Amino acid sequence: MLDDQVTEDVLPEEGDYELDRDVFGPVKAALDSGNAGALALALEPLHPADIADLMEQLSDDDRTEFVRLYGSGFDGEILSELDERLREDVVEAMEPEVLAEAVRELETDDVVDLIEDLDDPQAEAVLDALDDDDRVVVEQSLSYPEESAGRLMQRELVAAPQHWNVGQTIDFLRSQTDLPEQFYHVILVDPRMRPTGYVTLGRLMGSLRATPLTAIIEESFRTIPVRQDEGEVAYAFNQYHLISAPVVDDDDRLVGVITIDDAMGILDEEHEEDILRLAGVGEESSLTDKVIETTKRRFPWLAVNLVTSILASLVIAQFDAVIAQFVALAVLMPIVASMGGNAGTQSLTVAVRALATKDLTTGNVWRVIRREAIVGLVNGVIFAVVMGVVGVIWFSTPMLGVVIGIAMVVNLVVAGLAGVMIPVTLERMDIDPALASGAFVTTVTDVVGFFAFLGLAAVMLL
Amino acid sequence: MLDDQVTEDVLPEEGDYELDRDVFGPVKAALDSGNAGALALALEPLHPADIADLMEQLSDDDRTEFVRLYGSGFDGEILSELDERLREDVVEAMEPEVLAEAVRELETDDVVDLIEDLDDPQAEAVLDALDDDDRVVVEQSLSYPEESAGRLMQRELVAAPQHWNVGQTIDFLRSQTDLPEQFYHVILVDPRMRPTGYVTLGRLMGSLRATPLTAIIEESFRTIPVRQDEGEVAYAFNQYHLISAPVVDDDDRLVGVITIDDAMGILDEEHEEDILRLAGVGEESSLTDKVIETTKRRFPWLAVNLVTSILASLVIAQFDAVIAQFVALAVLMPIVASMGGNAGTQSLTVAVRALATKDLTTGNVWRVIRREAIVGLVNGVIFAVVMGVVGVIWFSTPMLGVVIGIAMVVNLVVAGLAGVMIPVTLERMDIDPALASGAFVTTVTDVVGFFAFLGLAAVMLL
Repeated sequence: MLDDQVTEDVLPEEGDYELDRDVFGPVKAALDSGNAGALALALEPLHPADIADLMEQLSDDDRTEFVRLYGSGFDGEILSELDERLREDVVEAMEPEVLAEAVRELETDDVVDLIEDLDDPQAEAVLDALDDDDRVVVEQSLSYPEESAGRLMQRELVAAPQHWNVGQTIDFLRSQTDLPEQFYHVILVDPRMRPTGYVTLGRLMGSLRATPLTAIIEESFRTIPVRQDEGEVAYAFNQYHLISAPVVDDDDRLVGVITIDDAMGILDEEHEEDILRLAGVGEESSLTDKVIETTKRRFPWLAVNLVTSILASLVIAQFDAVIAQFVALAVLMPIVASMGGNAGTQSLTVAVRALATKDLTTGNVWRVIRREAIVGLVNGVIFAVVMGVVGVIWFSTPMLGVVIGIAMVVNLVVAGLAGVMIPVTLERMDIDPALASGAFVTTVTDVVGFFAFLGLAAVMLL
Repeated sequence: MLDDQVTEDVLPEEGDYELDRDVFGPVKAALDSGNAGALALALEPLHPADIADLMEQLSDDDRTEFVRLYGSGFDGEILSELDERLREDVVEAMEPEVLAEAVRELETDDVVDLIEDLDDPQAEAVLDALDDDDRVVVEQSLSYPEESAGRLMQRELVAAPQHWNVGQTIDFLRSQTDLPEQFYHVILVDPRMRPTGYVTLGRLMGSLRATPLTAIIEESFRTIPVRQDEGEVAYAFNQYHLISAPVVDDDDRLVGVITIDDAMGILDEEHEEDILRLAGVGEESSLTDKVIETTKRRFPWLAVNLVTSILASLVIAQFDAVIAQFVALAVLMPIVASMGGNAGTQSLTVAVRALATKDLTTGNVWRVIRREAIVGLVNGVIFAVVMGVVGVIWFSTPMLGVVIGIAMVVNLVVAGLAGVMIPVTLERMDIDPALASGAFVTTVTDVVGFFAFLGLAAVMLL
């Protein structure tokens, strides 16, 4: 009997969760032949999150066909797992009654997350599919700022008066018929509904009936302000090992609960955004973007890079007479700039990460800057010697070796300094350092690299 | 009475968790004056995770003084929150009895995490501080491969025979005196201790006594193989919204449990490593590294960059006669290379991320490659026109504008292709694409950029 009910997903021993050809083949075949039964069969063992991933990897046409063919099998959870950029298309392709059915299966916080990314008519269609009660809850959540705790929280929660004991609480829980599907704590509240602590269900289970709840509350109790930025929420969960946390309004009254699985999703998104910003790709870039979106997202950063590299060219142009005389300078100059750019990127990445994890503060910033300068100096001297020797051997001009060596040291020290000071300054100015630091730092290392190398050459070689 | 027991950490409304001068000032003053009471007072409101962050930001001398002065106030949790690179120093600075006391407060999985990063004599000291029972458990965990589920799991778990009903299970839990501090599920096992499903405590609380456990099991039940890589474990938790998951040995028998807070910590670490690898910084780099460690970590990547930029210089050297004749080529050539490098980094970052999140697979790789090539072409044509005009105006040589324009298109298309194909190829060869892609891609865009631009110039301008 048990085996009928439990479908345990068996993981390969090496533990690789990648969707493979074994799934793709049958799905693609079902789509091509328009065989709804075969499609449903192929998808049956998959988790909604995996089905969403699979849909993301289909071409646009295949995806539309997928939605049509899957029909009423379409689970609401697939929608909320789907890449935000595809939801619009998929919702549009769904039959209204299938959409309504799918949406009604979702928790209200998932509906909020879904609606945020839809256009007005589609958002309206989703809202219409809800019961009146759920609709009110969803609309209330949508009244909080985007990317705030209020959008992330669920309303379903379990609270108890702080003066209760274990027995009263267990009896209360046992008598409820509509407990939330997932909850891990009982939140203690005072008479004005302000949370004052919480108790894990495990602790509750393991304590004597007469024990007052206040005697078994968790030490690390924290409330989340409803308007707090979701990134800070994720930070708090990760930093303080929270499993769930009560959300409070401006009067400190309990309005909802955020659980760690949502916080983990946000942490993942924030990281993703940081990586993409550091690379000068729009923070919402994704593989599912179409050509035109991708081109548009990447264009601005390339345009910034064009301006900064023209700036570097203007520096070079000042020395065209020197270059005309010593073509070796043109051959060697990209090395100095490139080494500086690389060293600068190293420093800046460490600094941007440290700012994001709040490890770089006023308490240690000067020590970090000093460290970066010294590291730049040490590596600079080593590579100066190497390049000096290469320069001498390659072009048999000892002075050229000296020039490239000095320029290398100068540029690596500047790279180390700029790599920390630029992101720190941007952060102080409330500009996201992940977003803008790269362009500034490479501009500095290009300009300084070319100027130091060609300037020294002009003085020492002519 | 309640207020005495609950110390709720109040968050600022804007929700910024950064440690600020308000904490640093008193701590530094206490360290400077050697005032143990003042130090304890300043640290009293802080969570161990925040105390660990604060210690990371102190200088080495201050940190040693901190350990000495804080003395027996030192909580074991601070040790497990501390940056891995500092643990060694801190453990060394601790009095043996303080260390023993601190370690005994920890859960066994935290002790495992702590010992992993210590040298043998210190690891031995920590092991010696444990009870015999805990020591056996810790040593067993250490027998699993590093960074495997076995190292991550905790042994404390709650299991019940799969044929029990709700009433039996609740009675069992209520009768236990040593339930784990944190648990969220009751794991169902068959007679051979193989997990067959699990039930949340919330579901258990809300169900009638006669309900069989098998009727209220969670749909998304998954077991984790004990040797699975911790990165895959984190992926599974995030992908399938697991809160806790049973860990099984090679015979599918239950050996432990992993909870989501540990998985979230691993997800955070994996992201950190990816960002640092992409920037060519050793994946374990941190602000707390000393100058010599930092220099050593960054050196190899700069050395690789030196070799690849010398390669680019060799390409330039082939055209020294052309450059001598048209110095404008030396002025403009870094622009073509820099734009290619930038576009390549954009493509490669998106590709590396998509590989990490398993969104780039055999199912869509060709469509992605085609998209990158088209995006490169479109952006290339736009920037070709811009640079063509700039080139003509700046140097009044129309043909120079044509040359730089064509070179730009070529290099941006190549950048798009290399940005996807190189990480995909490395992944297939089981080389971490985050680690090595950057150097390969910029080598390609530098070489192609210089070669296309100078080669075309040689043909069209001479």
